[in-house]
Amino acid sequence: MADWQEISGGVTAARGYRAAGIAAGLKPSGAKDLAAIVSDVDAIAAGVFTTSQVRAACVDYCRQRLQAKPSARAILCNAGQANAATGTQGWTDARESADLMAQALGIEADAVLLASTGVIGRRIEMDALRSGIPQLVAALSEDGGDSASQAIITTDLVTKTIALETTFGDRPVRMGGMSKGSGMIHPNMATMLAFVTCDAAVSPHLWQEMVSRAAAKTFNQITVDGDTSTNDCLIALANGQSRTTAITESGPEAEKLEAMLTAVCQHLAKAIARDGEGATCLIEVNVSGAPDDAAARQVALTIAGSSLVKSAIFGRDPNWGRIAAAAGRAGVSFDAEHLRVQLGDFLLMDKGQPLPFDRAAASEYLKQKAAGAYLKEDTVAIAVNLGSGSGTGQAWGCDLSYDYVKINAEYTT
Amino acid sequence: MADWQEISGGVTAARGYRAAGIAAGLKPSGAKDLAAIVSDVDAIAAGVFTTSQVRAACVDYCRQRLQAKPSARAILCNAGQANAATGTQGWTDARESADLMAQALGIEADAVLLASTGVIGRRIEMDALRSGIPQLVAALSEDGGDSASQAIITTDLVTKTIALETTFGDRPVRMGGMSKGSGMIHPNMATMLAFVTCDAAVSPHLWQEMVSRAAAKTFNQITVDGDTSTNDCLIALANGQSRTTAITESGPEAEKLEAMLTAVCQHLAKAIARDGEGATCLIEVNVSGAPDDAAARQVALTIAGSSLVKSAIFGRDPNWGRIAAAAGRAGVSFDAEHLRVQLGDFLLMDKGQPLPFDRAAASEYLKQKAAGAYLKEDTVAIAVNLGSGSGTGQAWGCDLSYDYVKINAEYTT
Repeated sequence: MADWQEISGGVTAARGYRAAGIAAGLKPSGAKDLAAIVSDVDAIAAGVFTTSQVRAACVDYCRQRLQAKPSARAILCNAGQANAATGTQGWTDARESADLMAQALGIEADAVLLASTGVIGRRIEMDALRSGIPQLVAALSEDGGDSASQAIITTDLVTKTIALETTFGDRPVRMGGMSKGSGMIHPNMATMLAFVTCDAAVSPHLWQEMVSRAAAKTFNQITVDGDTSTNDCLIALANGQSRTTAITESGPEAEKLEAMLTAVCQHLAKAIARDGEGATCLIEVNVSGAPDDAAARQVALTIAGSSLVKSAIFGRDPNWGRIAAAAGRAGVSFDAEHLRVQLGDFLLMDKGQPLPFDRAAASEYLKQKAAGAYLKEDTVAIAVNLGSGSGTGQAWGCDLSYDYVKINAEYTT
Repeated sequence: MADWQEISGGVTAARGYRAAGIAAGLKPSGAKDLAAIVSDVDAIAAGVFTTSQVRAACVDYCRQRLQAKPSARAILCNAGQANAATGTQGWTDARESADLMAQALGIEADAVLLASTGVIGRRIEMDALRSGIPQLVAALSEDGGDSASQAIITTDLVTKTIALETTFGDRPVRMGGMSKGSGMIHPNMATMLAFVTCDAAVSPHLWQEMVSRAAAKTFNQITVDGDTSTNDCLIALANGQSRTTAITESGPEAEKLEAMLTAVCQHLAKAIARDGEGATCLIEVNVSGAPDDAAARQVALTIAGSSLVKSAIFGRDPNWGRIAAAAGRAGVSFDAEHLRVQLGDFLLMDKGQPLPFDRAAASEYLKQKAAGAYLKEDTVAIAVNLGSGSGTGQAWGCDLSYDYVKINAEYTT
């Protein structure tokens, strides 16, 4: 169906990008904690950021930068300290970080975008950053995508990357991406951190529109714990190095690029939900029959985020009444007498009436999904039809386990 | 400050009420599962119900009944089966329950209100109910409040009752209440189940207004797991048996009655949050400096409901950045540079700037709150000032522990 193929390389799969990830001493553990993506030429840059009133300095910095000029050469990302709720000092630190990176690369300071992740309320370890940046720039390479993806994670168990290739006319166009996130996941405009690189040529306004729409269907539709982060950001670069004709208006080529972008974002978003703190499986919720698509997405996200649905699935308990209850409280008007609920292949409720089903077999279905987490096949599928329109939507989450509590009870102490 | 005193008796403390709770065989455990409150004379009845689109049959039944006539003689409540998501059969069962209760009491069927709690998607065990109702009516007594409160609980560890007495002129006025709820607690109009009895004389319209306002400040401000229930209901009766002058318009007497009602509701609401599934402590969030009271309540509820705040408190970790993050994502506009965050007596952030604090002492403060759950003193106090207005609000929740996951992973299987 999709007219593209998966390739390797992550954010350096697209032409004209270099990346690196190093251990600069910002994380107490000594793990990699400083990453950069650099485009050889000015890239069109689009961003989607957290809607929180308490935002990291880097988020405000990027929003201001992109409002002034929708292009960039480099993204600098640190892990370990979120630089959120750090007051005026956080802003000073952010500006110094961008200046240092620009000097090391020999570019203008306003061509650098920033992202941070880690403990909220902690400043960036600036001494470590100052000595780390020259090493980071020295390590930049055309196959540095994997290394960079390792340096942006915190409580994540796995790195999250993807790259796709297609053709426009007879020329290849490539798009790569990486993301991080495992807890504080309930994005409201974008997720913890995600970066997409593309070598297509596209106009800034169209690219931003595509990025916003893709985020609405993907990153904004995942939830781990219902907590929107202070540092959410999705930054997508398009540097034109594919040497294809510039896409400047809607039409088949724009649609194809947006579909590819949505596929990249969906892959990265699902990877975050699958790696949710303490998760043993991915939950995919498909809602149909809603008044419109936005309403369908809202119901899907409410079900995926329900603590009761999540803990029932952790217990491999086909307690479908909780799915119906979550749909009912989602703030979308529908007629409960048309409600249809399905778990995998098990039809549990139709036309608002509960149906008899094989409880042991449904529990076994859930148990099989536990077998090997982090595999794409291990997805618990919930389908709900509201019978009240033609709107459809998806959302992704994970189950709620003892380990979620353990991880979050012991994070800073 | 309060011009009333606490008395014993729960819902039978007020004059002219009888109650009972029996084991009728609806719960597989054999515990008490059928309760009734009966007023000697017609009582003014006000109700507040779940806003879920998937509602229990009893909720729709009560709403229709109270719209037709704002008075009632009896409330029948069963535990074990929620009778929600049970289709047309659920409605038939509800009507038969009311008819049977009316026959046993020798009153009109439209004088009976209904409530159910238990597993969603399960019909009431009607055979057990049919044989139980005559026994229940035979057991009604003027000191049956405690017994009734035992018959409405499910995963609750403790019963929740209160009674207050004051004087209007030289005559005593009493108000009693009971509630249940421990999981699926994030009420949106009222909570799982709460019943208030009062012997004041008050006009129906004024009583409904008082009940709605009290619910907005109390039951609607508690959260255990963010899941609004299908069966939420608060029913409040006022039967005039205090023989005091009828309160028919706003003024000092109406204000006093409403303050007393709010105190009863707040006690019952806090008791639910304190008994939240798996909880080891009560969390009270006070928000000030908001644009208005509703905005303050919204921020308070968001903080109290944050999985990350809740698990940090379970871990006795003063990770205050999560409190700031939750305030930021609450959907209320404020200037982060005025944010002030306090945990107990520890001032952690002021004017948007993080402050140094004694982390070990703050952790010790949280550890002390774990000592004896279910005691009023064991409240973790969070205070947030948004510095953006004069609105204030409160919310209550509990910590998120391993036992929450355990209880909900194993509920129906």
